[in-house]
Amino acid sequence: MTLDQTHDPKLASWVEGAEPGSDFPIQSLPIGIFSEAKGLRRPGVAIGDYILDLTASADLLDEEWREDLSQPILNAWLSRGPEAHRALRQRLSEILSDERYRDDVEINLIGQSEVRMHLPCLIGDYTDFYVGIHHATNVGKQFRPDNPLLPNYKYVPIGYHGRASSVRASGEPVVRPRGQRKPPEADAPEYGPSRRLDYELELGIWIGRGNDLGQPIPIGEAGQHIAGYCLLNDWSARDLQAWEYQPLGPFLAKNFLTSISPWIVSADALAPFRTPMPPRPEGDPDPLPYLSNDADRQSGGLSIQLEVTLSTEKMRQQRQAPHVLSRGRADSAMYWSAAQIVTHHSSNGCNLQPGDLIGTGTLSNDSDQGLGSLLEISRGGKQPIELQSGEKRSFLEDGDEVTLRAWCEREGAVRIGLGECVGRVVSAY
Amino acid sequence: MTLDQTHDPKLASWVEGAEPGSDFPIQSLPIGIFSEAKGLRRPGVAIGDYILDLTASADLLDEEWREDLSQPILNAWLSRGPEAHRALRQRLSEILSDERYRDDVEINLIGQSEVRMHLPCLIGDYTDFYVGIHHATNVGKQFRPDNPLLPNYKYVPIGYHGRASSVRASGEPVVRPRGQRKPPEADAPEYGPSRRLDYELELGIWIGRGNDLGQPIPIGEAGQHIAGYCLLNDWSARDLQAWEYQPLGPFLAKNFLTSISPWIVSADALAPFRTPMPPRPEGDPDPLPYLSNDADRQSGGLSIQLEVTLSTEKMRQQRQAPHVLSRGRADSAMYWSAAQIVTHHSSNGCNLQPGDLIGTGTLSNDSDQGLGSLLEISRGGKQPIELQSGEKRSFLEDGDEVTLRAWCEREGAVRIGLGECVGRVVSAY
Repeated sequence: MTLDQTHDPKLASWVEGAEPGSDFPIQSLPIGIFSEAKGLRRPGVAIGDYILDLTASADLLDEEWREDLSQPILNAWLSRGPEAHRALRQRLSEILSDERYRDDVEINLIGQSEVRMHLPCLIGDYTDFYVGIHHATNVGKQFRPDNPLLPNYKYVPIGYHGRASSVRASGEPVVRPRGQRKPPEADAPEYGPSRRLDYELELGIWIGRGNDLGQPIPIGEAGQHIAGYCLLNDWSARDLQAWEYQPLGPFLAKNFLTSISPWIVSADALAPFRTPMPPRPEGDPDPLPYLSNDADRQSGGLSIQLEVTLSTEKMRQQRQAPHVLSRGRADSAMYWSAAQIVTHHSSNGCNLQPGDLIGTGTLSNDSDQGLGSLLEISRGGKQPIELQSGEKRSFLEDGDEVTLRAWCEREGAVRIGLGECVGRVVSAY
Repeated sequence: MTLDQTHDPKLASWVEGAEPGSDFPIQSLPIGIFSEAKGLRRPGVAIGDYILDLTASADLLDEEWREDLSQPILNAWLSRGPEAHRALRQRLSEILSDERYRDDVEINLIGQSEVRMHLPCLIGDYTDFYVGIHHATNVGKQFRPDNPLLPNYKYVPIGYHGRASSVRASGEPVVRPRGQRKPPEADAPEYGPSRRLDYELELGIWIGRGNDLGQPIPIGEAGQHIAGYCLLNDWSARDLQAWEYQPLGPFLAKNFLTSISPWIVSADALAPFRTPMPPRPEGDPDPLPYLSNDADRQSGGLSIQLEVTLSTEKMRQQRQAPHVLSRGRADSAMYWSAAQIVTHHSSNGCNLQPGDLIGTGTLSNDSDQGLGSLLEISRGGKQPIELQSGEKRSFLEDGDEVTLRAWCEREGAVRIGLGECVGRVVSAY
């Protein structure tokens, strides 16, 4: 992927709040679905503190895009693939930087604080991967101290299907799930509210163009099928998970809710932040040929900074700053690249569809400061963390609010944010 | 569920081929989506050898149903729940039995052999369960001879999410999937066509009315959310499965294709064939209270006969009858009922949506004649079966065609069929 004028760090927008340092400078222009009070859901692009209403701006856009960009979901738009997405970004880059458009366009800007964001797509299928090798190792150690990673991990980008119906945009309340839980010392399980509710810090990958059933996507073409990225919180009930997950994997422990940040930050916008894949540790096997090519080795990594914060009800009452649970990075956490994920997923002929969502799996770094779940931070609940409020946490309590944030920064490029993914726990019904 | 005049065994239709013995007598009236050559997809009801075109018959139907019954998918119709579905069945029962309607209605009957059947719904989520206890035991024995069933099995209706995008109606070719496979004696896996391709005999459950996120479905209401049943073939690549499935469950081994019979046979039509749940073996725990009530104990079983046949290319050339791989029954195979499946799935607040599809898991009986997969029949590939053609099979070869059939029969009721679910294996691309 080459850089073009849309990535020019000197490019500036006339829109307020779009200055460098914003999550949404003119170099990003992520797309999403919003609504105003009582208004219809429709596509918009984030710029500074505003959203550009694309339906209202239709006369500035290519005629052939207008129908797709006035739908309440972006599946049809995503299906157009990177050429159209790039052309829209270039067009908007021009409009939002050139003062001559200001009078015509300004009336179609709406403050982000005045709208509600929705899921950008009707998600046909949601798949969750497990490419965070430090997370897999940390979790594996709790079950198998001497042999944390299973033999397939370094050959197979491990993934499993999640629940599409319960994916929600940031802000959705996290209703504490009920379920079967069986402490090791109990004779039989009980059904009741989860006592070990957790979050998981992940990136989400949005599928753009799909593939036909029976037609795998070669590694060299995987990038053509990735529309963009978001943040993803794979809320997890650890007590339900421990009891239910053998032999077919996590199910009710996960499918009560998955939250995502609402903006699709395009793969194009993130091009300045691509990095080589981290070298595989000495002794690790090379990826099989279908999962490997030079381009992916050289630029399959994503230099994304990750942060998770927690605020409890008491902390909010006492006006304390949220507690930073972790700070880390995506590129050093991911054993497999986004392209390898997409190629592997379709390698048996499975058809991916526009608007499908793929989670990377929890992205933990190889340090105590960069762990992507409370299960890891509290060592399976054995080492609670202490908060400024004097409270302790092993897992999430009712009223706790978890916020995921991510952004890209590097010398010579303008910072780009992925926005936020927030959820507050409410008690079980 | 009480029986009404639609179940009357003396009720007869004026439509050809709807005589007792047909899969589709007037006592069934399953709904599906069909198209004629170059025609639009639209809803129809099976009667004898024909389909009644519901869109063309709109003036005979309640006005408020017409929009839902002229869509190319039945999700909106299923969302109406059992009252509307029962009313349509009663109305059609009258029309198709009373000769006075014949002249008006006959022109809207199309031969089943002249149409193509499609998926009846846009499947939002597909979930596969594992309630066939003999299958779970047989498969478990291959891995853990002394301890085939894990401790959670008799408390938790085990399930996992499958892939919705690759569910197809009966007749879809089964493209042999490629994937990573690693024989035990090999040092490293290879990527190539599966060598252990298998089928799995299952029933499918169609969700009608949905539930809201965070609102579990009580066991006493589960039946209100089940629109009907179909046959389901959970094609499985055993070599891919063995290598990939730890720790998060089956993924690429299953998601290349799932085939279903195209007719939604309503829960109402199957009411005469409900049976008590089989008594739990001595020493088994009672289901937890949220999974148990009197009605389900007394009539949670489904007296459905199951049959699987195989024909190879050579057998078809030699005009040999298909080989019967198994004959069994659903009620004695299922450790958990359909209502328990639905209640458990939503017990953490997971929202089920109209048109969701749930597989029961492989339905094997406790006898060598009633095994629901080649993995079980060939004892993991160690005991190939011999066919009349002189060929042997441990797993499926290219050209092999597998047909699932199911029907309900009992004294005093008219036989009802679920139709067929057929798939023929073609070589990997």
